[in-house]
Amino acid sequence: MSLSNFKWADRVAEVAPFHVMQLLARARQLQSEGRDVIHMEVGEPDFPTAAPIVAAGQEALAKGLTQYTPAAGLPELREAIAGHYQTAYGVTVDPGRIIVTPGASGALLLLSALLVNSGDKVMMADPTYPCNRNFMRLFEGEPQLIPVGAESEFQLTAQHIEQHWCKETRAVMLATPSNPTGTLVDKSSLQAISDAVTARNGALIVDEIYQGLTYGIDALTALSVNDDAFVINSFSKYFGMTGWRLGWLVAPECAVPALEKLAQNVFLSATTPSQYAALAAFQPDTIAILEERRAEFARRRDFLLPALRNLGMSIPVTPEGAFYIYAGVDHLTDDSYQWCQDLLEQEAVAATPGLDFGFEGARKTVRFAYATEMSQLEKAVERIARFIAK
Amino acid sequence: MSLSNFKWADRVAEVAPFHVMQLLARARQLQSEGRDVIHMEVGEPDFPTAAPIVAAGQEALAKGLTQYTPAAGLPELREAIAGHYQTAYGVTVDPGRIIVTPGASGALLLLSALLVNSGDKVMMADPTYPCNRNFMRLFEGEPQLIPVGAESEFQLTAQHIEQHWCKETRAVMLATPSNPTGTLVDKSSLQAISDAVTARNGALIVDEIYQGLTYGIDALTALSVNDDAFVINSFSKYFGMTGWRLGWLVAPECAVPALEKLAQNVFLSATTPSQYAALAAFQPDTIAILEERRAEFARRRDFLLPALRNLGMSIPVTPEGAFYIYAGVDHLTDDSYQWCQDLLEQEAVAATPGLDFGFEGARKTVRFAYATEMSQLEKAVERIARFIAK
Repeated sequence: MSLSNFKWADRVAEVAPFHVMQLLARARQLQSEGRDVIHMEVGEPDFPTAAPIVAAGQEALAKGLTQYTPAAGLPELREAIAGHYQTAYGVTVDPGRIIVTPGASGALLLLSALLVNSGDKVMMADPTYPCNRNFMRLFEGEPQLIPVGAESEFQLTAQHIEQHWCKETRAVMLATPSNPTGTLVDKSSLQAISDAVTARNGALIVDEIYQGLTYGIDALTALSVNDDAFVINSFSKYFGMTGWRLGWLVAPECAVPALEKLAQNVFLSATTPSQYAALAAFQPDTIAILEERRAEFARRRDFLLPALRNLGMSIPVTPEGAFYIYAGVDHLTDDSYQWCQDLLEQEAVAATPGLDFGFEGARKTVRFAYATEMSQLEKAVERIARFIAK
Repeated sequence: MSLSNFKWADRVAEVAPFHVMQLLARARQLQSEGRDVIHMEVGEPDFPTAAPIVAAGQEALAKGLTQYTPAAGLPELREAIAGHYQTAYGVTVDPGRIIVTPGASGALLLLSALLVNSGDKVMMADPTYPCNRNFMRLFEGEPQLIPVGAESEFQLTAQHIEQHWCKETRAVMLATPSNPTGTLVDKSSLQAISDAVTARNGALIVDEIYQGLTYGIDALTALSVNDDAFVINSFSKYFGMTGWRLGWLVAPECAVPALEKLAQNVFLSATTPSQYAALAAFQPDTIAILEERRAEFARRRDFLLPALRNLGMSIPVTPEGAFYIYAGVDHLTDDSYQWCQDLLEQEAVAATPGLDFGFEGARKTVRFAYATEMSQLEKAVERIARFIAK
């Protein structure tokens, strides 16, 4: 058989590959040739999973807890997550509204399948995390990208919604803290957005994947403003459990039966040992470790932010969350992808070009991650300075 | 906000819930009331994960191997899977064509996204595993269900393809061994099917999730017949790793870049400790354990098959794989869902009604799983006999 005459589904061509993957492949090649590459392109905390979580995973394996769980997750984990909302945010959530998913990707998958008919639009900011828009396209919907800038802290506002809502718009998706900009939506803005969406009978989706990783400001959950919001979260970032592939979704009660049905079909259940491990994520000894790490992320941001500004990069809004700085490099290049390639070749510093996050302004921006240790960041800044001075 | 005016996407209503879930919920309730329920509805081996696999998972955790892997999986696991094809089936597969997925569900997700445009049809047998048809619908395709019976061993044939292929048909999906019927497609039939699909420029998808669990017959892989087939497999069944959520997909080389791009977007990567654990799945000491279990499944089938036939159930084709017997109960009822409910209430035996697997003949059939120990199966047969005699 030959598949040479077979054309892939249309969506395949429309889902862009991540430009950073090519840079990453090149970075690995340079490393294998002995170059000392500094990784500022990664979206993964550099800390290992906290010891109490690993211990809980090992205990689950020792006990032989390796069968399927219910599709919506272990009941005790759903309760623990509900407890976390109460403890950390003072918000009461029925555990029955929490669905444990294989990473936040699993939550995005369920939501796209639930909400998006062919041709439906989901409004989101440009720039945004590329999977958010790609998931909508995968299910025949359209990301309705609204260019945002410093004037709205790189976030959607109620005004954007009032201005751009059209009859195909079904939902609005926010990310707070945002990847790639590290900016947050404050409570009053969130309330106004929620009101604007509700008034239009739309659904509000809030990506809180970087919740907990905020610096000098308290985190918020959209549930404190709108109990009917769809909230996506993850054990990957603040809880440092990337490779365990575990996230969750909080949904309005009326959506739960449909989401459970979809979950049974699309992933059956999340990984069982990961779910048992995550039970330890909310323990005080674990939280103490995670808070130390948060403080370290804050120190890194406090170093990197002024350092990049000193190099002339434009960072008009102070990033207060996640571990990213989205920097304007238009004084240096009109092609930030090429600039990233040159930076990697000449100075062995890897960063992510703006092209991965959107269209408007994408060629003038670069995302620098500070998920690498301080000494590396210091070295990176020296190298970038030298690169710019050339 | 209230979502009461919000209508879910059309696909939600068209994805049927699993009828067995309601039976399962009732079974759990009965158990909590002290009833001794025998589970013949489950699709999960009753054996714990083999010790060498668990040990490898524990070792990975001890080493802190909890970061993301590449989207297509750990290179060493892709090589180990390729090695398994060589050792067990004498087939050479480039590891670069193997994509490690979060369960076989992840493989089905990738394939549906890759192959199915809105309105495209994927031909498959009725009865079939319900997720197969639901995945196609999720991506706006249509399962093209072809009723099959004893005359073709409950499998599609080349003749079906010649007869039913239409301009919307894009692919044909087989499952061998089949869930729910336990029947296989033999090599000559597979070759004829493959030729018929190729002649029509279609894609061939073969679900080999129960590969290895065959009794009195050697397993086959479709790759030995068609190197360009899309083959789905899993660590859940033969390898006994259900809760670890790990499967794989073998794809033609030309499809790999698109599949990797989709994988980056839809799940990032499969669970890391699970992937390290699975490296131990192909070791001789593990295979020895799995082969003992296979022999035990064979003993169970050899008990249950004549026992159900003695009760008058119609099982016209001897199931040679998986751990299911798909039994005709039309001499007992014209509503096998109700019959299953009554059997559960009166005799505390849980089985899966045919309705979960298709339409044609679905109300006249029941699927009995023998993923429970022999003493339970013996008791179950006594109870079913008593129930029928009432």
